[in-house]
This record gives sequence, structure tokens and C-alpha cells, in this order.
Amino acid sequence: MTATPASAAINSARLDDHLNALGQIGRDEFGMQRVAFSRQDVAGRDYVSTLMRGAGMSVRIDPAGNIIGRVEGTDPGVPAIVLGSHTDTVPSGGAYDGALGVIAAIEVVEALRDAGHTPRHPIEVMVFTNEEGTSFHRWLLGSRAVAGLWEPEDFAALDDDGVTLTDTLPNIGGNMSRVEAARRRPEEFACYFELHIEQGPTLHRGGFPIGVVTGITGRSVYHVDIVGEANHAGTTPMALRRDAMSAAAQIALAVRRIAGEMEVCRVGTVGSMDVHPNAGNVIPGRVQMGVEFRDERMESLAAAEVELRRTAEEVGHAEQVAIAVTAQRNTPSVPISGNMQQLVADASEMAGLEHVSLPSGAGHDAQAIAAITPAAMVFVPSVGGISHAPAEFSTPEDCANGAQVLLNAVLLADER
Amino acid sequence: MTATPASAAINSARLDDHLNALGQIGRDEFGMQRVAFSRQDVAGRDYVSTLMRGAGMSVRIDPAGNIIGRVEGTDPGVPAIVLGSHTDTVPSGGAYDGALGVIAAIEVVEALRDAGHTPRHPIEVMVFTNEEGTSFHRWLLGSRAVAGLWEPEDFAALDDDGVTLTDTLPNIGGNMSRVEAARRRPEEFACYFELHIEQGPTLHRGGFPIGVVTGITGRSVYHVDIVGEANHAGTTPMALRRDAMSAAAQIALAVRRIAGEMEVCRVGTVGSMDVHPNAGNVIPGRVQMGVEFRDERMESLAAAEVELRRTAEEVGHAEQVAIAVTAQRNTPSVPISGNMQQLVADASEMAGLEHVSLPSGAGHDAQAIAAITPAAMVFVPSVGGISHAPAEFSTPEDCANGAQVLLNAVLLADER
Repeated sequence: MTATPASAAINSARLDDHLNALGQIGRDEFGMQRVAFSRQDVAGRDYVSTLMRGAGMSVRIDPAGNIIGRVEGTDPGVPAIVLGSHTDTVPSGGAYDGALGVIAAIEVVEALRDAGHTPRHPIEVMVFTNEEGTSFHRWLLGSRAVAGLWEPEDFAALDDDGVTLTDTLPNIGGNMSRVEAARRRPEEFACYFELHIEQGPTLHRGGFPIGVVTGITGRSVYHVDIVGEANHAGTTPMALRRDAMSAAAQIALAVRRIAGEMEVCRVGTVGSMDVHPNAGNVIPGRVQMGVEFRDERMESLAAAEVELRRTAEEVGHAEQVAIAVTAQRNTPSVPISGNMQQLVADASEMAGLEHVSLPSGAGHDAQAIAAITPAAMVFVPSVGGISHAPAEFSTPEDCANGAQVLLNAVLLADER
Repeated sequence: MTATPASAAINSARLDDHLNALGQIGRDEFGMQRVAFSRQDVAGRDYVSTLMRGAGMSVRIDPAGNIIGRVEGTDPGVPAIVLGSHTDTVPSGGAYDGALGVIAAIEVVEALRDAGHTPRHPIEVMVFTNEEGTSFHRWLLGSRAVAGLWEPEDFAALDDDGVTLTDTLPNIGGNMSRVEAARRRPEEFACYFELHIEQGPTLHRGGFPIGVVTGITGRSVYHVDIVGEANHAGTTPMALRRDAMSAAAQIALAVRRIAGEMEVCRVGTVGSMDVHPNAGNVIPGRVQMGVEFRDERMESLAAAEVELRRTAEEVGHAEQVAIAVTAQRNTPSVPISGNMQQLVADASEMAGLEHVSLPSGAGHDAQAIAAITPAAMVFVPSVGGISHAPAEFSTPEDCANGAQVLLNAVLLADER
């Protein structure tokens, strides 16, 4: 076992340069356009592959299209410490979501080399395919392949033009016929760290430079279909209406109340509403709504569902409309172990940075990788809480702080 | 002055035959498709023109495309008693809205001929162009031309394919260059009667065969534009949201409450809601709603507007969203004179039919014609209150009762 230096320092100017350079690839007037498998995505992947090689890493692409950079450690036969995130973006997205985690992971490897320190463990930097799921509507595609979490729908995926994923994977160096080989065994990995922007306002509002993620929120999605009776808006008395819109409005406010005043779960949202016939002079006969709840505790999500169904029954009875609540998707929450949280907290303290614990409201590659190895996440502030938009921004100082915590976490994990 | 017989009787079998025959023209599996100016509309117009000639009427088409059948009276130089309605339908509409008034008006002329009775006054039967306004989005087009109520938008009207009304009017025998000649002088008309289905549930529920219309409801239409902030549904805490959907739901319920519990006006409806970006995992940043209120009293509509604006201000403040309430259209209510209502009530009693007074919640050609001559309306029950739908239905007995009241009203008006 080699002696471990107490510290190594990331080069904040280099980090900022690389982040800005990647932020120019696939940018147009509406934002970042590195949608997975696009020409722009390929250009971004080429850029980070080049950076990896420059940092002394061997680089390969697995059959799921994940880019894997690796530097060997001093001890033979020990599992790798893995750092990862993604470089694909939503359409018209921002330059930090995913990109920061990848560029910072490469910077960690460079900083260790600058410090002349070779850890005991190998380090792998993973750039996961199609985290956003904009393409093929299958998110966390690369990280789920690594964790062995692909579903039949992934193998059979079609994009909006009817092109198969099988035909598309070769665009980024993948190969569907060998995709099972992207799966990694738990014994290959020591642990996983992902640095990410918060994508919410908590750290920025609170003035905290570092967030220690306590878990990745679970999400339950419902389709609410309300059928009343379309009728003439002028001739139908108020008392005789079966107005799907009135019922929908009550359910929308109930969803807000369940997460808000009642605090049954952390957040609840009605993001979509489709009204039929949606004409000014016709009482709506049908409204379809998209409802979702998120929480770190699955029992809170279950309680929110009970409350939603109770409200739907009450409102349906009172308004004389039929309300069907259908569960669409239930993404379990992923807890982060106390040990791994403590490691990130210690890494922050090593850097002299104040930290706060908070859940991740968004999904991340870490939640897939957590199925095969202990995983942790480091958050840095998003200015104004804005994400998935061109105005997404984290300050160079916050990005450098996050990268330093990531580096310190690697050093601590390597020691333990 | 000739002697007036105490009575003449409509032929209910003939009325039903003609109504059913018209109801086959332009019908498909989804309902009646006699949208104004369509091939189906022209076929319906041809059918009623033929019926008019068969009833001994001279038939002409005015430059606005209105079909005008006329029989002369015994007294020279007296103004005409006018009966009218329309044969155009909404898309996938019903067989009674408009059609009953036209077929019954022709039956009145036939029944008078059967009885060997020629009234003092000429009788004109008018079939008004594009009452529904589905085409060109300009409703009451023919009756407003007769009343001299065309607006600049009528002259310049374009349909959804960009075709001008000028190019379309000749399809039904009209002529834009002479359209001002469709306008009639008040001294040409003695009065106007229109028989129509109620299109609402009041008569059918109450078991009343005849409704005496007290006035045609006024209607005020508003566009409500709510601008909040679109944001991530997972990462944005409830307390920091500027959710346009929550605000929209509160306004929808307020509109219902204003007309319902508060009884500020007769009815209030949110018929349309458009949500942006309308994605399940994004807090809506913008919602646009269509709101309308209807009442017979314009002061009630004004009070409803005050209440709507007060609510929008309150909700906007509480939810930290910008709410713009824009008045779109304000159709004044049209009262029906006590004399004319009494005449319809007397005509019902002459027929031994119970009657009830009620406002018209929908708009009708009568409200345009009321600008140039005393107008009255007779309603018959709509089964289930259904209209503008294939299931629209009024029983043959109710239709015959309505036609008899229309005939009696002509006889009474001719005497007075």
C-alpha cells in the first residue's frame, strides 16, 4: 500500500476551460442541443474522449455506447472507483446538467496526475448514454445497461421516426447484439460518485456551496381521466352540469394541497391537462390530466396515492363525473447509505466547504449504478434553481468546489 | 278587412315528414353536417326552397344568401309578419336546431292554405345564412345582414382555408357587391316569430310543452392568460413554485362559484384551457383559459366581470403569477317586449298548452332581427337538454305543439 497524500488540488481554470469548451458544442440560439445520438451528441462525446486520453486514460466504448476512461491503480486486482455522469442534453437544455459531472471526473484524474499521486484503486470515468431519455423515450439507458437493469422495452426501442435503437447504437460505437456485455459485475466496482448541479433552488437560496445527497427521490405518475358531459355553455343551468373542468380544477388543487399544506409527500405536480372539446362555448365533457408525486420515502408516495384516489372519489361523486386514476409509472426512491453520505460530508470538510444534506428531486445515473455498487452524489448550486433551460448556470467557483469535493471523496474512498 | 277564423290547424304528420326528410340531408354516422356553404347545406336549402314553392310561396335569395319565401296578404301595403330560422348546422350537429323553425314556418303557410284562410298581412319565411357561424367564424351572418348589423369583419371574412366570403357567397346565390341590399327597413316588417328547440333541459325536466322566451341572454367572453414560471417538477419545492396551473384551477372554480353559489349571473363556464409546456414533469409556466358568463341582465354580466377580475388579482398575488384578463366579446342581451311575450302566451293558451317563461341561453337569429322589428320566440323541449350533438331530439308531439303555437301567434298578430 502506497502512502496517501493528505491532499491534491483540482485546477479550477482548466476545469472552467473544458466546461466552457464542451458548452460550445451543440449550442445554438435556443440552448444546448446535444440530444443523445445526434450529430451534436457525437461531437460532445468526441471532445470528452479526447480529454480523457489527454489525462492519460485508456478509453473504450461499451456495447451500450457508454464511454469508459480508465487509469490503473497501484494495487493489482482491486475494484475501480467509478466517477460518472452524461453529456447528452434535453432539447434546448443547459451546459451544466451532466456535463459538469463528466468534466469534473476527468479533472479529478488530471489533478491526481498533477499531484504525482496514483491511488490504490483504478479509476473509471463513465459517460453514460442517453441519460435524459429524449431519444427513444428510454432514460438512464447507458447506466441501466451497466447495472443490468434493461427492460424488454429498451431492446425493442423505436425513436419518433420509427428507427430502432439497434440501428442507432452504432452511431455512437454501440452494438445491440453485444449489449449484455455492457453489464458490470458488482465485484468490479468499489463505489460510485457523481457530481451534479442541484437543478433546484435549495443550495443557491441557502448559500450552501455543497449538497450531500441523501437519496434520489421516488416518483409516482398517474393519468387522471375525467368524463362528464359536454353541453351548451349557455343553455345548461349550473346545477345540472356534469363539468369535467370543475372536477379537474378541484383535483389539481388537491394535488397541490397533498404535497403542500398536508405535507403527505415532498412535491406534487399537475403538469398536463387536455380538455375536450376545448371550445369556449361548450362545457368540457372530458379532461385528461397528468399527475405526479415525488418523495424519498415510498410510504409517503403510497399515502399521496391514497389521498389522490380519495379526492377523486369525492369529487366524482359531488360533480357527477366519472374519474379514473391510473398508475402509470412508479420509480422507486434510491437511498444513499449513511457511510457514503458521510464520505461526501468528510470530503467537503477536507475542502473547508460548508455542506447541507438534501434529497435529489431529479433522477440521475447514480440511481441505476446504485444497484451494483455503493453510490453517492455531490450537488452544487444552480443559480435561481434553473435547469433544462439555456439559463442553467453554476458559477465557476461552485463548479470548482464540487470538483474538489469529488477529488477528496476519491482520496478518502481510496484510503478506506 | 276579411273575417278571421278562430283557428287553423297544422298538419302534424306533414310537419314530421318534412322535418325527417330535411334531417336525412347531410346526415352521416357522426350527425348532421350541413355546415353553412357546404354541399350539404346547399342540398338542405334546395329542399326547403322546394317546400316553399309547394306551399304556394314566391321564393327569392337575397344578396346575403338568405332564402325568402313570401305569400301576399289580403290588405295591400301592410308590412309582413316574418317567420324564420336557419338550416345550417354545427359539425356533427342535430336535426332540430334551426330546422324545426324553418319547417314549422313553412307548415304555418300550408296550414293557413288548408284552412282556406288568407291573413291580412303578407307572410315571409326567412332561412338565414350561417346562423351557427362555423364557417368564417361569423355567426348570425344572414340575419345580421337583414338587420343592417354587419361589421367590417363580415365584409372581409376569410374561412380557415383563406377563401373569402366574397368568393363563397355565390355558392348559395348571394352576392357581396350587393349585400347591403339584403338590409330591410323596419316599415317592411310587422313582427317576427321564431320557433326553436330549447337546447337546454328546463322544459323537458319541468314537463312544460311550450316556453315563452323572455329575452336572449347576453354573453361576455374573456381570455385569461396566466404566466408563472416553468420549472422542474422534481426539484422545485412547493413553496417556491410559480405554478400557472394552480392559479388556473382557482380561477376555474371561481367562475363556477360566481354563477353558482354566488348567483352573480346565470351561468359561467371555462370551456377551454391550454397548458404550456403541458409535460408531466414540468410545472406549467403558462395557462390560457377561455371564460364566459351569460345573463339576461347586463348589470349581472358587469358584476361577474368585476368578480372575475378581483379573483384574478387575488390569485395572481397569492401565487406570484401574472394574470391578464382580456374582454374578448360582449354580446348584449336582447329583451323581448312584454307585448310579444303575451302574444306567445295567448297563442299557447289558444292551443290549450301549458307554458312557462324562460330566457334563451343560446343566441338566435331573433336577436338580430329584434333590432328592426318586434321579435318573439317559442321554445319546445329538448329531450335531455341535448343540443349541437347527434342525440339532439324533440318529440313529434312537441314539434307539432310548437308549430301550432307559431300558427296561432301569426293569427293573433294578424288580428291585432
